Amino acid sequence: MKKLPHLLTGVAAAIFLLGSVHAAGPYRNTDNKNLDDVSEGTYPIPYKMPVAAEITGALDRIRGYMESTTPTRVINKKTGAEITDFSKPVADAIIEPAKGDYGILVYEMGLFHSGLLKAAEATGDKRYLAMTERHFAFFKDKLPYFAAQEKQFKLERANSFARFLDPRSLDDAGSFCAALMRVRHAKVGPDLSAMIASCSDWVANKQFRLTDGTLARKRPQAVSLWGDDMYMGIPALAELGRMTGERKYFDDAVNNVLNMSRYLFNPQLGIYTHGWHQNAPDSPRFYWSRANGWAVLAMSDLLDVLPKDHPGYEPVLNQLRASLKGIAERQSGAGLWHQMIDRNDSYLETSASAMFVYTIAHAINQGWISPTTYGSIAQTGWQALSAKITAKGEIEGICVGTTLAGDQTYYYNRPTSVHALHGYGPTLMAGAEILKMLKSPNVNIEYKVRTYHYQPKGNGATDYREHH
Amino acid sequence: MKKLPHLLTGVAAAIFLLGSVHAAGPYRNTDNKNLDDVSEGTYPIPYKMPVAAEITGALDRIRGYMESTTPTRVINKKTGAEITDFSKPVADAIIEPAKGDYGILVYEMGLFHSGLLKAAEATGDKRYLAMTERHFAFFKDKLPYFAAQEKQFKLERANSFARFLDPRSLDDAGSFCAALMRVRHAKVGPDLSAMIASCSDWVANKQFRLTDGTLARKRPQAVSLWGDDMYMGIPALAELGRMTGERKYFDDAVNNVLNMSRYLFNPQLGIYTHGWHQNAPDSPRFYWSRANGWAVLAMSDLLDVLPKDHPGYEPVLNQLRASLKGIAERQSGAGLWHQMIDRNDSYLETSASAMFVYTIAHAINQGWISPTTYGSIAQTGWQALSAKITAKGEIEGICVGTTLAGDQTYYYNRPTSVHALHGYGPTLMAGAEILKMLKSPNVNIEYKVRTYHYQPKGNGATDYREHH
Amino acid sequence: MKKLPHLLTGVAAAIFLLGSVHAAGPYRNTDNKNLDDVSEGTYPIPYKMPVAAEITGALDRIRGYMESTTPTRVINKKTGAEITDFSKPVADAIIEPAKGDYGILVYEMGLFHSGLLKAAEATGDKRYLAMTERHFAFFKDKLPYFAAQEKQFKLERANSFARFLDPRSLDDAGSFCAALMRVRHAKVGPDLSAMIASCSDWVANKQFRLTDGTLARKRPQAVSLWGDDMYMGIPALAELGRMTGERKYFDDAVNNVLNMSRYLFNPQLGIYTHGWHQNAPDSPRFYWSRANGWAVLAMSDLLDVLPKDHPGYEPVLNQLRASLKGIAERQSGAGLWHQMIDRNDSYLETSASAMFVYTIAHAINQGWISPTTYGSIAQTGWQALSAKITAKGEIEGICVGTTLAGDQTYYYNRPTSVHALHGYGPTLMAGAEILKMLKSPNVNIEYKVRTYHYQPKGNGATDYREHH
Repeated sequence: MKKLPHLLTGVAAAIFLLGSVHAAGPYRNTDNKNLDDVSEGTYPIPYKMPVAAEITGALDRIRGYMESTTPTRVINKKTGAEITDFSKPVADAIIEPAKGDYGILVYEMGLFHSGLLKAAEATGDKRYLAMTERHFAFFKDKLPYFAAQEKQFKLERANSFARFLDPRSLDDAGSFCAALMRVRHAKVGPDLSAMIASCSDWVANKQFRLTDGTLARKRPQAVSLWGDDMYMGIPALAELGRMTGERKYFDDAVNNVLNMSRYLFNPQLGIYTHGWHQNAPDSPRFYWSRANGWAVLAMSDLLDVLPKDHPGYEPVLNQLRASLKGIAERQSGAGLWHQMIDRNDSYLETSASAMFVYTIAHAINQGWISPTTYGSIAQTGWQALSAKITAKGEIEGICVGTTLAGDQTYYYNRPTSVHALHGYGPTLMAGAEILKMLKSPNVNIEYKVRTYHYQPKGNGATDYREHH
Repeated sequence: MKKLPHLLTGVAAAIFLLGSVHAAGPYRNTDNKNLDDVSEGTYPIPYKMPVAAEITGALDRIRGYMESTTPTRVINKKTGAEITDFSKPVADAIIEPAKGDYGILVYEMGLFHSGLLKAAEATGDKRYLAMTERHFAFFKDKLPYFAAQEKQFKLERANSFARFLDPRSLDDAGSFCAALMRVRHAKVGPDLSAMIASCSDWVANKQFRLTDGTLARKRPQAVSLWGDDMYMGIPALAELGRMTGERKYFDDAVNNVLNMSRYLFNPQLGIYTHGWHQNAPDSPRFYWSRANGWAVLAMSDLLDVLPKDHPGYEPVLNQLRASLKGIAERQSGAGLWHQMIDRNDSYLETSASAMFVYTIAHAINQGWISPTTYGSIAQTGWQALSAKITAKGEIEGICVGTTLAGDQTYYYNRPTSVHALHGYGPTLMAGAEILKMLKSPNVNIEYKVRTYHYQPKGNGATDYREHH
Repeated sequence: MKKLPHLLTGVAAAIFLLGSVHAAGPYRNTDNKNLDDVSEGTYPIPYKMPVAAEITGALDRIRGYMESTTPTRVINKKTGAEITDFSKPVADAIIEPAKGDYGILVYEMGLFHSGLLKAAEATGDKRYLAMTERHFAFFKDKLPYFAAQEKQFKLERANSFARFLDPRSLDDAGSFCAALMRVRHAKVGPDLSAMIASCSDWVANKQFRLTDGTLARKRPQAVSLWGDDMYMGIPALAELGRMTGERKYFDDAVNNVLNMSRYLFNPQLGIYTHGWHQNAPDSPRFYWSRANGWAVLAMSDLLDVLPKDHPGYEPVLNQLRASLKGIAERQSGAGLWHQMIDRNDSYLETSASAMFVYTIAHAINQGWISPTTYGSIAQTGWQALSAKITAKGEIEGICVGTTLAGDQTYYYNRPTSVHALHGYGPTLMAGAEILKMLKSPNVNIEYKVRTYHYQPKGNGATDYREHH
């Protein structure tokens, strides 16, 4: 019976990786040059040392794909014709929809801009900024037009700029707002302070909250917390702190990390449940992977800008460490993480895996966690992710938009789609951070006895003299 | 690899649901009328809002099937000929065996009568009482004959009424006794006080016990506790308390809930191990699902009749809540629960799942737990159960009778059979309770964002204005 | 869906047990003579009472296979020709390699000698000592020749006796050293005190350690603990204690059990993580089954010789009990344990399973744990192991040599091989101990209600009068 898992994995690889630039698995580790080594088996993913050129190649394909599918034009939604006369608004004017349904103002696209910025930084390649510059220039240019359209026609949600003209939720405001401030801080693109003012006001002042300040929603119960809102709120607050220098934003961000973790984090398991309802505080829990991804991304983003002498720094860092340990221990044997992070019979999901790989690698690079063990976990996670990136730059296996639900059947059976944007930004971020990790002066990587050992520099030497 | 679980589930559905009234899966949620919605996937079960007419249809098929397979006649066991002369006993007289081996005096049939009573109550349809009336009239009529047979021929276990003429165990006495008292309380059928006296005397006074009063058995070790005995003992004690008004029976029932839970409940996991041996109190544990089903059914039945001012009321309620949380969190992605509740590679088992669905829905309807989250868990569980009920009213996937064993291989490989009666009563009970839940004035059900949200009435309104 | 696991298991059995002496599964329990019993299903392994003759047959096949594949000759490594002139050393002289790559001086072979000794003891069959006598006579005879070779040619690792001429690690020294002392204690073979002096000096005095005395390695991090080293160190220290009567060795062995358990044992789960790094003490953990096997074997070996009045006796016994409980609770539904003991989607691994079966059966026979429950777990484990022993005496499903790694993908995908010696000694040991358990005067085995109930003698009688 021993070979059955391998067999299934092999078959699965053969069936589902057809679109990938990797030949279909099973894969033999190409770093082991001894082809007669009987102690070298095969893997369901390309298990080997990541190669910088392969990573940049993958990031480039994603960038090219997203560039080509996100037009920045205004069209008439009925005729499809391009609108070029912006002297006075027409009711049918909309931003031309992206082919893959990738909205250029949605929260997931905020994450993609953050990813592009990181890719530019990690590679030194300015081309990664071109799409952000193009989109942001378009916003600068066309926001007044759509504002006038709204004033005249009151389209509400049907207005292409609704999220900024009339924000209603953290999904509308937070992630994109954080991206706008990050890009601004990097001195890329035009001045979008009007958009920043709109979205940051929503996050800081208008979003529904618990009485203790925790960001909340009025759905699916009258008062519900969503793990997702750690990312939809905290990075924007953190960037507001950085941009304005006002401590109240950092306080709010820290408070939300600690409160959310108190409500949602299971310290025994080291993972987050998807949500919590004030009307039923002891309900059954659902450990959805992407909620865990949002949580660790949010904490990582906050630590990036939080002053080290802020009293919240250590508590947030400790919470991040506890979460990453719980997450890392649940990595699958195929390198990715499962849709339900505690359920190995749920499918392997790409977007959460990308968030985990990014955050682990980033935490290593920042010195928040040790490269020991975490380094090889990040490496394997990246190699598994890389097999999900197709030759044309699509990313497979991403769970579509998912609500805070109340049964496992819903979660297990959420479809995956290359048109779910949630995984694109995180995958860029993960690849960029792996590139940095491989070059980090603080990390020493030994390939020994068929696997990879990440060591903190200055930790003392290893000794393989005993090993034959 | 992402699609593999779906694929397997689909194939499994295709193979094993052929007998069902549902077309074979995978299933698309028919409540979502937008057929172009790419965020709607498919499910291995008919995931949708339960429809009252479908539930009553399913209950009716089960009722009809069981009616038609449980004759109430006396025959000669050698010739098979019906016996009509009851003037003096013959040694070969037996109750005609049911086709599907469904004994009319076994503990599982007690549960079925309880289920019929609940179905009658939930539907208002008196036809659900007909089988109980027929069986009970037969008991009233023929018990003297078989008593005389026993006196003359000393058949012991071979006497068809052995369980009541000479009870020897909780299996003989408790479940059926509880049913007899419930039916009597509902003023259905003839006076069976002689049978009630026999079985209740066994449960209350004669069953082997630990020195602390916990119900026990002399097998498979010299002193063993069985989780099953929570149901085989506690409901009968509770009904005795209700029937007689004597507090000692309630005290005994409460004491058994709390003692059994002390020996068998793992508070870290929130679930019950199947049994415990006094000679080896720290042995490895086996979290058999049906044992968990017996436990929660027993607590629920007790709370139904226990006076609220009894000092045991709150402790029993808290223990039920803790158990339901542990159980609910282990529901599979296919809606049912696994044979070993903590092992997702063991098969999905129907009888325990039915007990869980019933108890969760009943606890919601009684206000013991919140509809929030628990409501959708019960709904999904019912929808999965409904796919196990065939067009002719058989129920598939029920684990056969199972002893208290000492290895996982035994438990994992117990066969399932439509002739295992254990699941029939609980499925009736589950369906009846779901019907009530759907009509409950205290529960508000919203179908939003492709799934189901159960809310306690008066909890404040939800708001989806933000959601586009 | 209920039959799917059975189906897969059946297919797996059909495919992978072809080499076995058992007909391919699924298997019906042959102890149940009622072929019409619908409550008897089938099993993926030959689930039944072990038969002594079948066990000795299996042990014999293993013995014969290993005898025939481990020559004790010296050859010229270039020409392959046998060397018969030992008057002066030649550089190319090596011990003739075994066909299956089974080194006659490796730590795994130490375990095999220990297994042969146990098999001889359990069966009373002296033939089990023949291979040990042949190998040990060869060592006695040829060690001086290879010592002279080393002096002249400085071959280091290329010298066939390198492990004893120049030990460098616990792998070189500990397991084999324990075997040498055990065999000596049994008065089998020649005087090998020179070899014992070399290896025991390494274990007791030269191996790298933490400042608290815990045995450690300088790989894969500068300071790493390996669970494997519980076995590579503790039994040798224990045997040194027995051989010399000096308490310091027992103290050292006990100290290592308790320290290793403090670093590696997860008391919440009851299992050991593979290793620990001083530079990153809170890293993610990998519960590799074989590491757990080494741990319990080491504790069991120590308790075999540790004086009962040693202050460490009770703590070591308690630690063994806690470990065996955690391990026993993770046995799979197919009788073996998974490669990662906490991951049921990793493959079933033979060597760790053999170590577990041996230690559980031995602990029962020694009175360290109760036969209640543990007896049936050991029985089922053995029956599953027996299906891995082929007609020619090879053992399938053994994970090859495995380093202390940092990602699940490595562990999950380690190949298995009949040429991995790690499982051979433990399987002999397991079979020998099961033979003893079946004959133990302290254990009563009842086959009742289709399964097996192990009872401590004198525990009081069971009573099945109630059961029909």
